[in-house]
Amino acid sequence: MNKLESLRALMRSRDWDAVVLTGSDPHGSEYIPERYKQIRFLSGYGGEASGLVVTTDEAGLWTDTRYLIEARHALEGSGITLHPQKRLGCEDLARWLGEQRDLTRIAVDALTTSAGFADALQQAVGEECEVVGVPELLAPLWPDCPELPQTPLFTVDSREGRRAKLDFLRDFCRTRHCDALLLGALDEVAWTLDVRASDIEYNPYVISYLLVSANEAVWYVLKDSVADPGSEDALERIAADGVRIEDYSAAQLLADDLPEGKRLFCCPRSLNVALRDALRNAGVEIVAGETPVAARKAVKTEDEIEAMQRAHLLDGIAMEKFLFKLEKALDAGQEVSERDAALWLGALRAQSEEYLSDSFETISAYGPSAALPHYVTPERDAPLLRQEGLYLCDSGGQYLCGTTDITRTVPLGECSQQEKEDYTLVLKGHIALADAVFPEGTPGCRIDALAREPLWKAHRNFGHGTGHGVGFLLGVHEGPQDLRQDLNPTPLQAGMVLSDEPGLYREGQHGVRHENLLLCVSDGESDFGAWLRFEPLTLCHFDCSALLVELLDEAEIRWLNAYQERVYTTLSPYLSEAESLWLRTKTAPLQD
Amino acid sequence: MNKLESLRALMRSRDWDAVVLTGSDPHGSEYIPERYKQIRFLSGYGGEASGLVVTTDEAGLWTDTRYLIEARHALEGSGITLHPQKRLGCEDLARWLGEQRDLTRIAVDALTTSAGFADALQQAVGEECEVVGVPELLAPLWPDCPELPQTPLFTVDSREGRRAKLDFLRDFCRTRHCDALLLGALDEVAWTLDVRASDIEYNPYVISYLLVSANEAVWYVLKDSVADPGSEDALERIAADGVRIEDYSAAQLLADDLPEGKRLFCCPRSLNVALRDALRNAGVEIVAGETPVAARKAVKTEDEIEAMQRAHLLDGIAMEKFLFKLEKALDAGQEVSERDAALWLGALRAQSEEYLSDSFETISAYGPSAALPHYVTPERDAPLLRQEGLYLCDSGGQYLCGTTDITRTVPLGECSQQEKEDYTLVLKGHIALADAVFPEGTPGCRIDALAREPLWKAHRNFGHGTGHGVGFLLGVHEGPQDLRQDLNPTPLQAGMVLSDEPGLYREGQHGVRHENLLLCVSDGESDFGAWLRFEPLTLCHFDCSALLVELLDEAEIRWLNAYQERVYTTLSPYLSEAESLWLRTKTAPLQD
Repeated sequence: MNKLESLRALMRSRDWDAVVLTGSDPHGSEYIPERYKQIRFLSGYGGEASGLVVTTDEAGLWTDTRYLIEARHALEGSGITLHPQKRLGCEDLARWLGEQRDLTRIAVDALTTSAGFADALQQAVGEECEVVGVPELLAPLWPDCPELPQTPLFTVDSREGRRAKLDFLRDFCRTRHCDALLLGALDEVAWTLDVRASDIEYNPYVISYLLVSANEAVWYVLKDSVADPGSEDALERIAADGVRIEDYSAAQLLADDLPEGKRLFCCPRSLNVALRDALRNAGVEIVAGETPVAARKAVKTEDEIEAMQRAHLLDGIAMEKFLFKLEKALDAGQEVSERDAALWLGALRAQSEEYLSDSFETISAYGPSAALPHYVTPERDAPLLRQEGLYLCDSGGQYLCGTTDITRTVPLGECSQQEKEDYTLVLKGHIALADAVFPEGTPGCRIDALAREPLWKAHRNFGHGTGHGVGFLLGVHEGPQDLRQDLNPTPLQAGMVLSDEPGLYREGQHGVRHENLLLCVSDGESDFGAWLRFEPLTLCHFDCSALLVELLDEAEIRWLNAYQERVYTTLSPYLSEAESLWLRTKTAPLQD
Repeated sequence: MNKLESLRALMRSRDWDAVVLTGSDPHGSEYIPERYKQIRFLSGYGGEASGLVVTTDEAGLWTDTRYLIEARHALEGSGITLHPQKRLGCEDLARWLGEQRDLTRIAVDALTTSAGFADALQQAVGEECEVVGVPELLAPLWPDCPELPQTPLFTVDSREGRRAKLDFLRDFCRTRHCDALLLGALDEVAWTLDVRASDIEYNPYVISYLLVSANEAVWYVLKDSVADPGSEDALERIAADGVRIEDYSAAQLLADDLPEGKRLFCCPRSLNVALRDALRNAGVEIVAGETPVAARKAVKTEDEIEAMQRAHLLDGIAMEKFLFKLEKALDAGQEVSERDAALWLGALRAQSEEYLSDSFETISAYGPSAALPHYVTPERDAPLLRQEGLYLCDSGGQYLCGTTDITRTVPLGECSQQEKEDYTLVLKGHIALADAVFPEGTPGCRIDALAREPLWKAHRNFGHGTGHGVGFLLGVHEGPQDLRQDLNPTPLQAGMVLSDEPGLYREGQHGVRHENLLLCVSDGESDFGAWLRFEPLTLCHFDCSALLVELLDEAEIRWLNAYQERVYTTLSPYLSEAESLWLRTKTAPLQD
């Protein structure tokens, strides 16, 4: 009996008409521990998806168009139908379920389903159908499900410190007339307690919850890791700042830790159904909303900015060494696959003592591979790089001093006219945004078009956002700000860090993306108000060999020459003589 | 006893703690008949305002920052406090009332207050206070209040025709499960019935309501105007298309005309409190929402586009004759005031047989006057134009073939470096938008920044929207699309007409605005989707004497030269030889 049939047998025994799995974890995370990879366990598909639905006679997986090819391949012969989704999130899946007849009970996994999703699902299917949260729904089918990881803890020194951050949350609670606030999102817990670990791949988080009330702060965390002396030290420091440390499992009982009154503020996206049900049963009133942490941590402190500049120096050194090594290897006729290149880059990043991990899985994509914006390099038989056309590499590191994210598109030899045009137009878009000046209060969606207009004029476009927020030694994607087509009203502010990554993708041919991280900074005041602009944090040259210089205007050439010069001047002291000479030629100024 | 005191006496006798007047009419119009100018009657201030509030001991007028100077002047010594408002609409006023203590009854004029406003006000003041709609609230104070105007009716021939438009509304009703739909907005009635008049200043509307149900259409309109043969003919044509014509006053009884079921769809912004209360008392269920008319009429038909092109030819001829006359008069040493100039332009427009009226009050503003984006030229002792600096003229016409709106900023002689820079940067912004290419589905707010970035780069900006929709022989302002900083999600579509009018204003010095109307048109399809761009409808040269050509790039010069050439070629056949020669020099191509 295959897994799907086993699940259906379970469904029959429990009177469930459908099961929905959302591919998240108890904290609403983007990256999740192995223990919660329920969709991969059932379907074989391991990429991003917004949900798997199994009914008595149907099974469907919802994923967005970026992952269709990968998902189609993985689902072949599985009996699971692939549903491309038009909208982000669970809307399409919930609507599909709402259109099915004769559903009276839908089971969701109580731990990995957020209260927000469960509510949306309940609304879509109507009152006649009950959405029930089932603890460890897959346990009978998956006895050898992996344990949760426990990795060494370490603390970071923030300018504000833990006590001030906890007081900030207490002040927020008061304005919302709540007795306590629960943080479930792992990046929000890590930021508040100035603590990090490696529990989640690519994200330096600690799997835990934080409960903050007027007189107390309780951190629910797996304690077995205390075995290691660094972790013990971290726990002591945190406890010394007035935080009571409890075992992770005690979070299910956190209602007992609440003061009288029991109004609890939390975000429905990071509150799971199991915890919500436990709180409800204990008579706790849940006040749902956005916590103030995301908006606060999006604006980096001076210390964080200084550290991130160092992270980008380290990252720039690794990138330039990588690009030098790659070019020389190809020139020497060496066989280099996409996978080799990714491994080389990872190894060069890891040479820094401050390197912790990559900040996401490196996209190492040659030629047509790069036409998939979220290409996953195969572990075996990865395509080989040749000395022609474009190679795209999108990667980043988690350093003790910050998080990086960079894409370079590298001409490996002769390029077609269309490759050159695409390369140049995307760079024009990148520069237009990097060089923009805008008034305080401007949301990112109002200036996203600056990066697209050079492409639009040539009837070209790209289907992803132009930029996302980036954390400080936290997630490589963070809100609330972004630079996208969606009308997100969050104003950009000095201190925010965003990626600037326009692209262009031609199926079966090639892909181009140019990405730097930008720091939003003040540009002073005038009679017309206060102004903002960007400063690139990323340090790595753009290869001008595929550039059609005649398509650039004076201001673009000025920006590019100044950037290239800064890259050379800043990085060359850390490079070998050969690397430095090579970088000098790569960054030679363009003539107007 | 002054008017305010008389009103307070009335308030005491009726037990009202406050009176709110909103400056609108029974249809939620932007421009209103004299009969409803209640705020001017009470306060002396005749400009735009979002409301006047009178309590037992306070009185306040809310207006946005564009009108502050004018309002301050008008309210001097009136006992009415001026409140600058930050947000559009009634939000600030309602909030202020919500903060007052001991209010138990607030009276609003039932005819000139929309149901939408009354609801928002009720929500702001809370349940303890009652908002009551009072029919003809000011009648005891204003016995000689003017009658409603009745102007001759005429019909227009639309491609669709009345019957198809009525069926379109019936289809919409069905999708909303309503038995009938009521149009209260005057432009929506005029569009649906293909009828026009001059009941409202600058707007070719007929004061009326239209009720559409499955089997009937009833037009509630003042019938006395039928005396004139043209109007009689118009009424006959409308009746011939299955429309029953009733007296305007019968609209208060329209519940009687509703079929069984009585679910009525209407827009709360154009439904007044008196009518809403009458419907409620008759047991009608009101379904509130946006009617489909605004979105439909925003996309012009081919016939309308052709006609609007003709309107812009007529308007361009008048504009060029005006600019020629102005320059020659000043050269001849003639004394010309802002008022003279406005009158000359009006007279030149009126030379066309197809001219009906101006489409708004001409802004004729020299030097510092132009620093007020909504300057009103004084009737007496208007400032004189001199042969230096900048003269700004924002004006438009209602022609039988369409509505126009144009602003030209005219250098009258020597200009300062700052005037030249401002003139040039605003033109760069104008061109950036006029020359934009963007994908189908793009809302205006996503490309508004294109018109601002050249100004932003110089730390300059303007406080109004970049563009508004324009009707076809209807309002010079219409929705739902616009080009603004607010995040309006309405996508631009081929067939929409929008203004492109960036500006720059320096108090006490000068103002610049360059405005053309643009037609949104298809720009074909590519591998990356379908594309849109703009074509200027407006035909009138930009004066290059104040232009800093070195600030323009090649593409901007190319756009400008092509536009100027098109203006010359199109208009010169309709100009005198002297005018034509003059226009030739004005439109001579710039060298790169």
